[in-house]
Parts: sequence; structure tokens; C-alpha cells
Amino acid sequence: MTVRFGLLGAGRIGKVHAKAVSSNPRATLVAVADAFDQAASDLASQYGCQVRSVAEILAASDIDAVVICTPTDTHADLIEQFARAGKAIFCEKPIDLDVERVKSCLKVVDAEAGTLMVGFNRRFDPHFMAVRDVIDRGEIGTVEMVTIVSRDPGAPPVDYIKRSGGIFRDMTIHDFDMARFLLGEEIESVTAQASVLIDPAIGTAGDYDSVSVMLQTATGKHATISNSRRATYGYDQRIEVHGSKGAVSAENQRPVSIEVANASGYTRPPLHDFFMTRYLDAYAHEISSFIDFVESKSPASPSGIDGLIALALAEAALKSVKESRTVKVSEITGALADKSVFQGR
Amino acid sequence: MTVRFGLLGAGRIGKVHAKAVSSNPRATLVAVADAFDQAASDLASQYGCQVRSVAEILAASDIDAVVICTPTDTHADLIEQFARAGKAIFCEKPIDLDVERVKSCLKVVDAEAGTLMVGFNRRFDPHFMAVRDVIDRGEIGTVEMVTIVSRDPGAPPVDYIKRSGGIFRDMTIHDFDMARFLLGEEIESVTAQASVLIDPAIGTAGDYDSVSVMLQTATGKHATISNSRRATYGYDQRIEVHGSKGAVSAENQRPVSIEVANASGYTRPPLHDFFMTRYLDAYAHEISSFIDFVESKSPASPSGIDGLIALALAEAALKSVKESRTVKVSEITGALADKSVFQGR
Amino acid sequence: MTVRFGLLGAGRIGKVHAKAVSSNPRATLVAVADAFDQAASDLASQYGCQVRSVAEILAASDIDAVVICTPTDTHADLIEQFARAGKAIFCEKPIDLDVERVKSCLKVVDAEAGTLMVGFNRRFDPHFMAVRDVIDRGEIGTVEMVTIVSRDPGAPPVDYIKRSGGIFRDMTIHDFDMARFLLGEEIESVTAQASVLIDPAIGTAGDYDSVSVMLQTATGKHATISNSRRATYGYDQRIEVHGSKGAVSAENQRPVSIEVANASGYTRPPLHDFFMTRYLDAYAHEISSFIDFVESKSPASPSGIDGLIALALAEAALKSVKESRTVKVSEITGALADKSVFQGR
Amino acid sequence: MTVRFGLLGAGRIGKVHAKAVSSNPRATLVAVADAFDQAASDLASQYGCQVRSVAEILAASDIDAVVICTPTDTHADLIEQFARAGKAIFCEKPIDLDVERVKSCLKVVDAEAGTLMVGFNRRFDPHFMAVRDVIDRGEIGTVEMVTIVSRDPGAPPVDYIKRSGGIFRDMTIHDFDMARFLLGEEIESVTAQASVLIDPAIGTAGDYDSVSVMLQTATGKHATISNSRRATYGYDQRIEVHGSKGAVSAENQRPVSIEVANASGYTRPPLHDFFMTRYLDAYAHEISSFIDFVESKSPASPSGIDGLIALALAEAALKSVKESRTVKVSEITGALADKSVFQGR
Repeated sequence: MTVRFGLLGAGRIGKVHAKAVSSNPRATLVAVADAFDQAASDLASQYGCQVRSVAEILAASDIDAVVICTPTDTHADLIEQFARAGKAIFCEKPIDLDVERVKSCLKVVDAEAGTLMVGFNRRFDPHFMAVRDVIDRGEIGTVEMVTIVSRDPGAPPVDYIKRSGGIFRDMTIHDFDMARFLLGEEIESVTAQASVLIDPAIGTAGDYDSVSVMLQTATGKHATISNSRRATYGYDQRIEVHGSKGAVSAENQRPVSIEVANASGYTRPPLHDFFMTRYLDAYAHEISSFIDFVESKSPASPSGIDGLIALALAEAALKSVKESRTVKVSEITGALADKSVFQGR
Repeated sequence: MTVRFGLLGAGRIGKVHAKAVSSNPRATLVAVADAFDQAASDLASQYGCQVRSVAEILAASDIDAVVICTPTDTHADLIEQFARAGKAIFCEKPIDLDVERVKSCLKVVDAEAGTLMVGFNRRFDPHFMAVRDVIDRGEIGTVEMVTIVSRDPGAPPVDYIKRSGGIFRDMTIHDFDMARFLLGEEIESVTAQASVLIDPAIGTAGDYDSVSVMLQTATGKHATISNSRRATYGYDQRIEVHGSKGAVSAENQRPVSIEVANASGYTRPPLHDFFMTRYLDAYAHEISSFIDFVESKSPASPSGIDGLIALALAEAALKSVKESRTVKVSEITGALADKSVFQGR
Repeated sequence: MTVRFGLLGAGRIGKVHAKAVSSNPRATLVAVADAFDQAASDLASQYGCQVRSVAEILAASDIDAVVICTPTDTHADLIEQFARAGKAIFCEKPIDLDVERVKSCLKVVDAEAGTLMVGFNRRFDPHFMAVRDVIDRGEIGTVEMVTIVSRDPGAPPVDYIKRSGGIFRDMTIHDFDMARFLLGEEIESVTAQASVLIDPAIGTAGDYDSVSVMLQTATGKHATISNSRRATYGYDQRIEVHGSKGAVSAENQRPVSIEVANASGYTRPPLHDFFMTRYLDAYAHEISSFIDFVESKSPASPSGIDGLIALALAEAALKSVKESRTVKVSEITGALADKSVFQGR
Repeated sequence: MTVRFGLLGAGRIGKVHAKAVSSNPRATLVAVADAFDQAASDLASQYGCQVRSVAEILAASDIDAVVICTPTDTHADLIEQFARAGKAIFCEKPIDLDVERVKSCLKVVDAEAGTLMVGFNRRFDPHFMAVRDVIDRGEIGTVEMVTIVSRDPGAPPVDYIKRSGGIFRDMTIHDFDMARFLLGEEIESVTAQASVLIDPAIGTAGDYDSVSVMLQTATGKHATISNSRRATYGYDQRIEVHGSKGAVSAENQRPVSIEVANASGYTRPPLHDFFMTRYLDAYAHEISSFIDFVESKSPASPSGIDGLIALALAEAALKSVKESRTVKVSEITGALADKSVFQGR
């Protein structure tokens, strides 16, 4: 079986997924839609697919699945439409910047029993997957403390930051998901501190550029996250898990691993300077994994609920900074009374 | 000039300092005192010094300086006595478990204009000193985020824990001092979370074995600390400083640095399993540095105030855990109104 | 312009090149030929190309270039035929196991002014290219000593060894080429020692499984090569260049770079266990580079002469072992009197 | 029991051993002799020992053992005198630059049944000892190939080089001994190549500054050695042993192990720049081991024979370079007919 794809959004991340879909022997890229005709037709001619409107893709009988790479504020509506149309859906994170909107969207998906996968690409990085495998094999015993350091090479434009929902929803959200992925249980409380150390314009825009977060689960496990919007040495992405029997870590990745020695010392090159080269393999594995779920009709992972919880953690972190206190996740998600959302987990 | 030493306390850490003093060409170990005669005479015969009582050392005209390695609850009294006797004082941390007692003790030292150095040995580790040097040379620009991971190979006996003042005062206190040493400015607020993950008996004793701490300065700099009372892989001691122009880190140390490769992979030996071997060089540098201060009659560093502040940070961390909120350091130290304590910094 | 390819040989290495050609946006795989119909048609259906005979590819007007992946004893004849047919040629190493046959073949290529590139894939590994770049930028000054360690995960079947021309022609030949690539000047003399340490059957077949080689240039530069047919820890491929101002090295590569720490120490996973995964990127860059030469009609590198010299070094090494002495390369190649072969270098 | 030492020679290496002896709780430094009165009295006052003549030390009843650190051309005579006087002898390498003189000297030691240890300090480096331990525990199976890279930070003065016996006897001799130590069996043949790449004055003095050596044992095991008299990055000392089940290596050592990251990459400091800091621990272990042999009256290791064989390997290497061929060690040592020298091994 070959899964036939429609791509919604031909921007930066859309191109990444177009390449991943096209390179996958179990997938065909049938059509692309974009608000900018030129972007759509450029991508279409590069990958030999058609340009169609969103409506046409929605109605198409020759399309099984869509990849949603449009602006964030369109995600929830598109998910609902395509879920109702019976298409399998891969959506870039976040589903929406508002927790309540995400909940209502997920109810629709739930009602349609649709396949929805959310794009937390880092879970599919081969090194991070190997860390998870070490944990699963019991090599480090019971997980106790997760340490995540995640720094971007440089801050995005302030215009982007204004639309981003803030650093917790835009950047830390990946680390919240990674913390859950590695802890292996739900987070109960969030405590965060945040500063503007890099660019005052970021502060003026109401956001932060340097944040630290502590997470705790009901059984007392810890995770800490350290984020900065700037790292001169490249895209700094490290995870480490300490357990009762040992620890496991994933090192940073660099494009070339040579070392030059001279009177100044021993120097290795900087890290990757862009998430697309750093996570190139992860994007390919992510789409391949989505195809697995589509083919097997099994629930996708990371799911819509995973997307909701990561967003709730971001909101809790922001609340923690504002109120200088530890925030319970249940303050954000409610008492999880809405069982339809969380059922089946 | 040779500095003539008296040693108070011939226990585990006393032996470390006896060795450091004896090996230093600028020092002579004249006498040792210990509540247990046998301990004192054993150490005296090993290093060729006399056994004397504390009172005799206090009155001795042939002793310039003392190293206080007695139980914590005797530190403050001894410091006051020896300051009044005009001896230079090196005291193992902490000065006392109670912040107010430390303050009153420091007032006495202050009034006598005495030399008091507090034993934060890690500042003298050659690798950590090199990290500080990199910062001082401006190689990483402005310091922004400090990350400290500090894990003991194993938990001490519960009896020890009961007398220790708790993990923040006993273990994290070193990391609080290291955070200040690396941040280069005072910490304004402390947020902590703490769990019992290793041994329920530690919880029964009212303490924790796994803690995470976030610190923030008035200018918004961050430090995070991750502590565990157990690490199967050895004495895990890492520091990392991220700044505006780069980052600097100190790796873990191991007794032998070989690597064995086979079908299971590439394996390097575990780390040091004991603080005395890990910080062997640090203890020697520490005493050497103390001798510098004694000889030059300049204020010692780390000072009594450094000891007080580290203790206050520990108390703030404990308060943060209890109250699930960020605690201002000034809540513990007061508004620093007592200028006599903080003057001259 | 798109370069249209014919592929000769659909075996293991043929498949590698089929993938590299197919994935390259500047190339089209038009046809494949193989003595085994099934192998050819399998590959053809996978990559959507035709099955043709060698004669048909030779005569085809819709094919610009061929990739020769057939058995070694057919290489020289095929090169001559396709050079006369005006096709650009990429040929897997070696051109032939006999130096004189290689010379006569290269004369034909020379006479036809044809494009011939020989498959020394390692020159195109991104890490090794980066080493060469460091040298070219003068960062290590004048090259003085090259050290190459190259070990296979396991020995090939004895049947393969019997047809291989021996370890120097089959395995070390890559290191001979790498030594020249890194030294940047011609090798004057070769000294080698060889043993059978792994499998007596390899000795019975007249070959060795463990060899050491020293090379020297006219100006006195050194290279050493250490080869083994077995390494339990994976495909061990390291190069290091020591120069007047410093040194540069390329580390081993592993599929995942995690580290597990426990009471036994710190363990990273084994290396790649297969040349195809280790040099996956190198194969893609190699074909891309060949396309550059075809498009620009400039002389290919590594050239037929590079193939000839590497083979001559292998022959010199074997002679050195047999005669327990240093062998001049000119003893094998002759006094380079045949200028038509070496002209233009 | 305390071993009472006389020290012959108060130069650079004499000071190293004076420190090692003085720091050892099982040893006392009783007296020092040196042709330069000032050197002897300086060292005597530093370590609180007497200045005596060689004759006085020879006749002294309060001296059990001597450490010979005088110029090389006095070693053999001193060894004979002190062996006849019944003193235990530690002698810096080499015993003599002439193989026949070493043989005759060892006959005297043999006849007196004296204790003679030769100063191959690297065997006592904790990292290299750990490599040997891994081999002894069978972790890498049968040893097959040893790789040694050994580079000095800078060339010694040409005056020194003229008296040194040449690079093989002066520098490579340590690596010859290390190769034997790691191979665990005798070397049968030596092949070497040598160049002058650093300083033409070294060539004018009849010596080389860059050498490569291959060694082979009777069972076919290999060792390769790469030496340079210059390494801008410090004192480069690496060993690696490849065996049937795996490999083990010892990394380079540096005084501080920090890493600075910025836009230029990740930089660790240079290596030790001097053998005395690099091998500080080794010298202490070496003297401690000598004391073991003196106390237990067991044969010392490395022995006089070990010194003889390392020298013979150096001579074989030089002969190999001169004659462009592999040289059998038996060409230098003879057919080992002189059993008195080799007995008891």
C-alpha cells in the first residue's frame, strides 16, 4: 500500500515534509496547497505533484492523508475539517495557542475516530530514540531526574516572536514533550523562571529569551529544562536521564566530526546551526512512523493529547513566572473531567 | 615565612587537611587536638607533630593559624575563641546550621579584624578555576546561565543525615557557593523542588535525596542545580556556564582515562568514587591559598560572608520546597541592614 | 542539464550507486545491465529504469555516462569499450589487478580523451574532506606524518579473498589512496609487514589478514597504515595528519551517539558495522562529484592514474613483505617513462 | 622497613627522583652526590639530606639503595661498582649506548645477584598500567596489533642530540619498551624509516627528527611507532592495543580538562607540555615499585635485560634505516648464546 499525501502549506517546514514524503517508498505526494500560488507551484514542480486548493484536497478521493504546515491559527479548523473528511492528519505543533480551543478540536477528532499525529519531531531523532530504548530495556533502572539543555543558535525576528505565543509555547514546548517522553509519566507541577538577557526588544514584545523550568511528577521524579534563544556554538540539544541504576545521555551533533590540534588546544567544529540539518533524520522517521499508523489504523503517537498536554505545560510555566510559584498542571487542564479527551490513554 | 598550624579535629576531613598542610613547603603542622586521644595521637605520629588540647593551641605562641575540622556545632564557638586569640582561621563549612548564629559569629570575627576562610574546596579545583579564568578573560562574554550537576556516589548513613541540617545545607551548599562563584553576582531568589527517590529512610528522617534548584540574580542571570544522593557511575561533578559569546564547561574526572572497545561498544571507567580523591588537588590548593591570605594579611576568600550566604541560600531553598514558591534571599538574610556583616564586600 | 546513466552490474555496490544516481536531482538512471537477469530486473523495477544488455548501453544515444560495478576482471575491457563509445565512465576500484593491464587501459582512455573516474569513495566522506580542507587552509602547516587505522568488522569469505588480489589490493588500496590524498605528494617507497592472525584459512589462500605499512615521499614525509580484517567494535576508520603547526584527525563514526553510565563505566555504542552505512554520504557526494566532471568536461579526480598508483603501491607492499625490504614505487611503475600515461598531472 | 637511599646526580631527572623518594613513606633520602657541589647542596637542603661523594655513598653502611641519574656514559661503571657493594640499584635508561657494554655490565650484576631496575617510567603511568590490566584480564582476547604515537612538544638542543645516541636510543627507546610491555612477547624483527623534517641542524648532527617503526614478533603480532620531535599541541603520548576480542587505548592527558565553545567550535586546552608533569604519578609509582623489589628481594622489573633489549631494538631500527630492510633483532643481540645474560627470564 502506498499512502497518498496532500500537503497544506509550502513554507519552510512544508518543504521539509515534502522531501520526507517524496523520499519515502511507501508514500506519494499527490498535491500541495498554499495561499501563495508561487510557493505551491514551485514546490509542486520540484516534487512532481499537483497544485490544488485546500477544498479540492479535502474532497479528493485520491488523497489518504494530509500534512498540515499552515500558520498556527489555521491548524484547529483544518484538523476538524479533515477529520470529518476521513483523512489521516499529521499536524505541525501546536494545534492552537489556546488550550480550550485545542480541547474542542480534539473532541471532534475523537468523535470521528480520526488519526491525528502531532509534529514533535525530536521523538524521532535516532539518538533520542536510542536513549528511550536504553530506558525501556531497564539499563538505568527507574528514571529519577531528566536534564534537558536546549538552545537555539539565534533568536527569531521579533515579528515572529509576537505571533509565537511566547518562548514557552514556541520553543520550550518541544522540551516539555521530550521531558514527558523521557520521564514516562505525567507531570504534576511546573515551576519556571524567565529573563530577557539577549535582546530587550524581546522583552518589549512581552516575551523572554532565557528560561529555566523544573517539572515534577506525582511520584517525585524531576525534569529540568534550560533554554536560551542564543548559542554562538550552534544548535545545542542535549538530553540526559539519571536513574536508579545508571544514566544515559545524547550528545550534541555536528555536521563534521574532526579535531584540529595546535598550540591553542584541541578544537572540534561548531554544532549544526539549524534545526533542519540537525533533525534531518528525525523528520524522515517521523513521516515514516505516521505512515505506519495510517497503514495499521492504530492510534498515532505523539497524539493530539500529547499536543494538548505540552501546551498546558507551557501555559503553566508562564503562570509560574507571573506568580512566582509552583503551578499544578491541573490548574490549566482542569480536573481532567472531560473524559472523552483523555480516554484511551 | 612558614605558617605554623594547629589542627582541630583528626577525623576524615582533618586527615585531608593534615596532609595538605604537611606537604606544603610554606607550612608546618605543629599540633593536633581531638576529643578522641587515639585519633589525635595517630595523626600526630603520622605527621610528626604534637598532641595538644584546644586550650593549649589557643594559648600557644608557636601557632599562627588553625584548621577547624571538628563537628559543625562547635565551629562558631571555636571561630570566636580563635579570632579573639588572634589566630588566622580556616574553618570547614558550614560555620553553623543556623543563620543567626553565623551572623553573630561573624560580628566577632569582624570586630577582631581576624582572618577567616571557609572551606568551599571546589573553588580550588584546577578545572573549576580554569572555568572561572575563562570567564574572567571575557572569552564567553557576559555570563547568562550556569548549570551545575552534582551527584554523590551514594547516600551517607541516615544517622549522619539526621545531624546534617538536610541535603540543602549539607550537599547543595557547595553548589550554591559554586553558583555564586560562577555567576559573579549575588543571587536574589531561590526556587527548589525536592523528593525522596532513593531511600524512604531519608524521608522518614525529614530530608530529601533528590533536589532541583533554580537561582536568579537581580540582573536576571540563571543558575540551575541538580543533586542526587546516588550515582552508580561515580562522583558526578559538572559545571557549565553559558554566556553571550560562548560557553565553558568542566568535564567529570576519573582516576584512569582508558577506553575499552568491543562488541558492546566503547567503555571508559567510572568516575572517582570519593570526594577526597576527586578533589585531592583542590584541598592542596585551598590550604596554599589560605597561607597566601595569612602571609599577606589580606581578607580571605571564600570568606565568612560567603559561608553565611551559601547557608542562607540553603535555607531559602528549603523554604521554597515547603511553600511551593520562589523565595527571596532577603527573606532569610534580612534587608542586609546589619552593615557590619556585609561591609567591605 | 541532466546526466543520463547506465549502470553495469546490479550487485551490492551496484545498488549503492543506483540509489546515489536516483537520488541526485542532476542525474537520471536510464538502464541497468547484469549477467543475472533477475538482479537487473529487480533493480530496474525498484528505480524505474530499463533493463538493457551491455552492448545496448554501449550503443545507446540516450546514455551519457556509465557506472561500472561488474566483477574486477571485466573492468579494463569495459572501460576501453565505453571510452571508445564516448561515454563518461565511473569505475569501481580497481581497474585491474595487474599493473600492466591498467597501463594499457589508461592509454586507450587517454587516446580517446575520455572522462574516467575511479571509485575511491573515502575521498568524498564529509569528515575526511574536512580534514583535507584544514590542510589546504594551512592550519596545520606542512604535512609531515599521516597515520591511518583501517579495520573491517569481519573478514570476507575465503572464496572472495581468493579472487580479491590479496589484502593490499583489496583493502589497503583505499588507504594507499587516502595516504596520497592527505600527503599531497607522491610516495617514493613502501615497506610492509603482514601476518595471519585471524583465520589460518586466509593464510592457506595465500593472503594475510593483519598488515602494517610505512610509506615515505621524496621529501621525507611519512604515512603509516594499520589494517586488520577483524574489529569486534565495528568498522574502524581513522585518519590523522601531523604537521609543522598542528594536527588534524577524523574520529570514528557510529550510527547513534549516546552514552550509558553505570557502575561498569561510561559506554558509547559500537561503530558502524558496514561500509555502506559508514560511507553512505560519501557515495552520494562521489556520484555528485562525477556529475560535476561530466558536466564541466574537466578531468575527473580520482583519475585512472590515481587508480594505477594505488595499485602499484599495493604491489610494492606485497613485494616488500616477500623480500623483507623497502621497495621503491618506481620498481613497479617503471621510470614513468611512458609519458602518455602520466602526462598532465 | 624503610629503604635508605643515596642519589647519584642532582640534575633535572635527579630532582624528580629526589621528590619521589622523599614523598614515599617507606623511603628515606640519606645522601646526594653530584659533580657540581652547588647542585648537590641545593638538593640536599631542599630535602634535608646530606651531601656525600660517590665513594662515600658506595662505602656507606646507612644506605641500602641508589638511584643513578648521572650522565649516560657513567651508568655502566656505577652499576658495576654498586652491584659489587651490594646496593640495590635503580638506574635511569639507558645503561649504556653500546650493546656490548650493557651485556658485560649485566654479567657483573648477574654474578653479584644484585637488584637492578631500569627507569622505563611509562610502565608505571596509571593509565598505561590500566591498559596492561585490561589485557591481562583477557578483555581484548589475544593481542594482535599495538599502535604507539609518541611526540615531544619540541626538539632538545642540538648539543644534547649529539650526545644522545640518536632518536632511536634517546626517544623511541621508551616506545620500544612500551611495545614489548604491551605485546607480551619478544620482538623478532624491526623495520624503520626516518627523516629530518623539523630542523636541518638535527640532520647535520647525524640524527633524525621524525621516525616510523614497525615491529613483528615470532607469532606475527605487530607494533607500530610514530615519533616526532615536535608537536605544537603538547606532549602527545598515546597507546592502543587491538586484539581478537576488542581493543583498549589510553588517551592523552592534559593539566586541565575544560572545554570552551564559541562560534569557532569546541576547544579543549593543549596537552601537558613536559614529561615531568605528564608522568608525575608514574615517577612516584616507579620508585614505590622499586622499593617493593628491594624489600621483597625479588627480581626487579623492568630489569637490566629489558634495558638491553630496548637498546638492541634501537640499534636494529637504525640499521634498518641505513640498509632499507627489515632487521632481525638477533642480528644485534646475537643468538642469545650468552645464557648468563638471559637466564632466569
